[in-house]
Amino acid sequence: MPLHRRLLAEGIGTLLLLATVVGSGIMGTTLSAGNDGIALLANAAATAGALYVLITVLGPISGAHFNPAVTLAMRVRGELTSSDAAAYIAVQLLSAVAGALLAHAMFDQPLWQPGTHVRTGTSQWLSEGVATCGLLLTLLLGLRHRPAAIPALVASYIFAAYWFTASTSFANPAVTLARALTRSFAGIRPEDVGGFVVAQCMGAGIALLLARPLVPAGADSTRA
Amino acid sequence: MPLHRRLLAEGIGTLLLLATVVGSGIMGTTLSAGNDGIALLANAAATAGALYVLITVLGPISGAHFNPAVTLAMRVRGELTSSDAAAYIAVQLLSAVAGALLAHAMFDQPLWQPGTHVRTGTSQWLSEGVATCGLLLTLLLGLRHRPAAIPALVASYIFAAYWFTASTSFANPAVTLARALTRSFAGIRPEDVGGFVVAQCMGAGIALLLARPLVPAGADSTRA
Amino acid sequence: MPLHRRLLAEGIGTLLLLATVVGSGIMGTTLSAGNDGIALLANAAATAGALYVLITVLGPISGAHFNPAVTLAMRVRGELTSSDAAAYIAVQLLSAVAGALLAHAMFDQPLWQPGTHVRTGTSQWLSEGVATCGLLLTLLLGLRHRPAAIPALVASYIFAAYWFTASTSFANPAVTLARALTRSFAGIRPEDVGGFVVAQCMGAGIALLLARPLVPAGADSTRA
Amino acid sequence: MPLHRRLLAEGIGTLLLLATVVGSGIMGTTLSAGNDGIALLANAAATAGALYVLITVLGPISGAHFNPAVTLAMRVRGELTSSDAAAYIAVQLLSAVAGALLAHAMFDQPLWQPGTHVRTGTSQWLSEGVATCGLLLTLLLGLRHRPAAIPALVASYIFAAYWFTASTSFANPAVTLARALTRSFAGIRPEDVGGFVVAQCMGAGIALLLARPLVPAGADSTRA
Repeated sequence: MPLHRRLLAEGIGTLLLLATVVGSGIMGTTLSAGNDGIALLANAAATAGALYVLITVLGPISGAHFNPAVTLAMRVRGELTSSDAAAYIAVQLLSAVAGALLAHAMFDQPLWQPGTHVRTGTSQWLSEGVATCGLLLTLLLGLRHRPAAIPALVASYIFAAYWFTASTSFANPAVTLARALTRSFAGIRPEDVGGFVVAQCMGAGIALLLARPLVPAGADSTRA
Repeated sequence: MPLHRRLLAEGIGTLLLLATVVGSGIMGTTLSAGNDGIALLANAAATAGALYVLITVLGPISGAHFNPAVTLAMRVRGELTSSDAAAYIAVQLLSAVAGALLAHAMFDQPLWQPGTHVRTGTSQWLSEGVATCGLLLTLLLGLRHRPAAIPALVASYIFAAYWFTASTSFANPAVTLARALTRSFAGIRPEDVGGFVVAQCMGAGIALLLARPLVPAGADSTRA
Repeated sequence: MPLHRRLLAEGIGTLLLLATVVGSGIMGTTLSAGNDGIALLANAAATAGALYVLITVLGPISGAHFNPAVTLAMRVRGELTSSDAAAYIAVQLLSAVAGALLAHAMFDQPLWQPGTHVRTGTSQWLSEGVATCGLLLTLLLGLRHRPAAIPALVASYIFAAYWFTASTSFANPAVTLARALTRSFAGIRPEDVGGFVVAQCMGAGIALLLARPLVPAGADSTRA
Repeated sequence: MPLHRRLLAEGIGTLLLLATVVGSGIMGTTLSAGNDGIALLANAAATAGALYVLITVLGPISGAHFNPAVTLAMRVRGELTSSDAAAYIAVQLLSAVAGALLAHAMFDQPLWQPGTHVRTGTSQWLSEGVATCGLLLTLLLGLRHRPAAIPALVASYIFAAYWFTASTSFANPAVTLARALTRSFAGIRPEDVGGFVVAQCMGAGIALLLARPLVPAGADSTRA
């Protein structure tokens, strides 16, 4: 598969993912009359729906990472070259930002609205570490045991993680960056992005270590 | 498959789809005591459930378009003749209207109740363009990579799009026409239909262009 | 498969189905603080979950009808004998009643509590006719085109039908009888049962007629 | 599969399951502004999502019991040795407790907070018996008829059982023990644990008896 097609797939997927995360967050708070439980149910279910679709239809082209932490983990496992990984990450970051702006445009809001939602402190970082570690374990074990189920696995995992972590599980540095550009429900203060990204990378690293005894040597399925 | 059987399938499917969209909208607003977040959760989940069922059981007969924008895109790709496409679209429009009336009858409401919900302006049109573009990409890429998953893909996509667009994602000219005949939650003013349909057709066109580099030459699965 | 095993499967399935319908209705109204939208979301999702499980694990034994209208339709199509059909229906009716009583016992309520929810009139009967017709079409077309998906199809259909009909889609004479024995959210007045059952049988009959042109001659898969 | 890998899988799975049950319970009550219906919807859906993922990716390693009642039933059926079963149960109990503590840490709460939620009496015990009996029947029949669907079956069953039983269906002695350590929505008083565990074991025993006539002799699939 030529690189430009894979990058186009990563770009479209990450853009629509962020449009969903930010857009459904805006819709949720608008409609739920102050009941954030309903807003997060809608936000989580819409995100899961979009992930299922985007991973199913774009996975066969690019692997459907949409996430620099996933791309780095795949690089460590030797599934793509360093230069391809760098290109993936650049496209993911740009497309994530574009997706947040697209959501603002669809909801007739200022395009540029730096986040104000405070998300910092050890329990938030622990949440992001656990969330990303779980996501990577889901991917690494799922690729080994049931690659055709990866879209449903990632969607179900993220739905659960929105609810079981205190941070609502960003678990993705590109998503974190883009959500620093929205003042909506889904936002994060720009100064809190760094802590989240460090925690996410540590969580991904722990998943790589844990996966070794769980999925030892031998033939590993490639991303289906 | 003879044309009359395919048209019967398109008719039953579009009728039940609209009965679900309008009926679950009425039930949602009736029960949710003014919390539109709950009403839209129910409306989106019921629509997704109906789409999954109708595409699974009628897809093998007619392709389960239920949507003039899909029929036009399939015509552009040469998957049906112009006269068949015209018959499909006529049946879809009539059945969609009948489905809205059936919902009104089941809920003991006036059958004919032109919509009053204002849905116009560039952010609404952008929403419909994005929603329809995403739907067509889901179909075109899904048919290529995983045709057996089309019912689940379309259902999941529409659930997400109800929430991530400001228009709640009509993404279908027949649905738009029929929803102009209901004053309920799901309705739209008759004078706003034109803008929606133009935006939907532009979104479908962009999807056809984007699909070219993503799914280039070669053997394309037909709708499963 | 000997008849006594098939009847045991019909009995366990119908009992657990009714325990779910009635029990989740009680839990929903207890927890949702008067917001019936939340109660019906929970009731519909729990029913769909139970149907998916029960049809998957008991379908290979008895066909997982759990519904006299389904058993009658299968009898018309010659898939079981008249005496087997009579035994199925007797077991379904008894088990449905037992399931409602089990739900009352689990929630520490009076076992016997005749329903008081008024459900009558032409729009209610139309709702039940449409609901049952749709259920039978889902089964008849699903058995033809994708029998392995029957559990997910029935579950998704019933979820949608809870919301798109004014009667919340009983669509099952045994369920209707049992729900006449509960005063909870899910109940129905005993004197309204007759109208529902007539409407359900008419809906099933229309489905048998509609299925003929849609699924004409030829090899029909048996219930998987 | 060497025992230490199977125990690692049981440990990670049970830990993440409890983190989800307790964490999503805390998030649910925090966000839902006193509407416990929304909190339980989120709690049930997040638990179902986690179960689907954990059973899919860890099932091929350890069988994904995560539940002493399941391990005991599998021991009765001769699918693992007594010493392996004892090791499984020890790991499940320790990991369940660790998972509850992890949830408290992620939400910045006291790690140790004995439960105060009163859950006792015959209707609660009946609920736990029915819930566990249904879970084991789902497993035993599912393993026989459709082992690849076990993750979706267990997830769907538990979602339904959260709603159709008065106890919200713990159905698992390790889960019960761990939930005695949280004062949150999902908690249980330590003195009520014993009654729940006895009821769960009786429910599992009844399921083993009922499964005999339903799934008689012959080749039984092993857990997939």
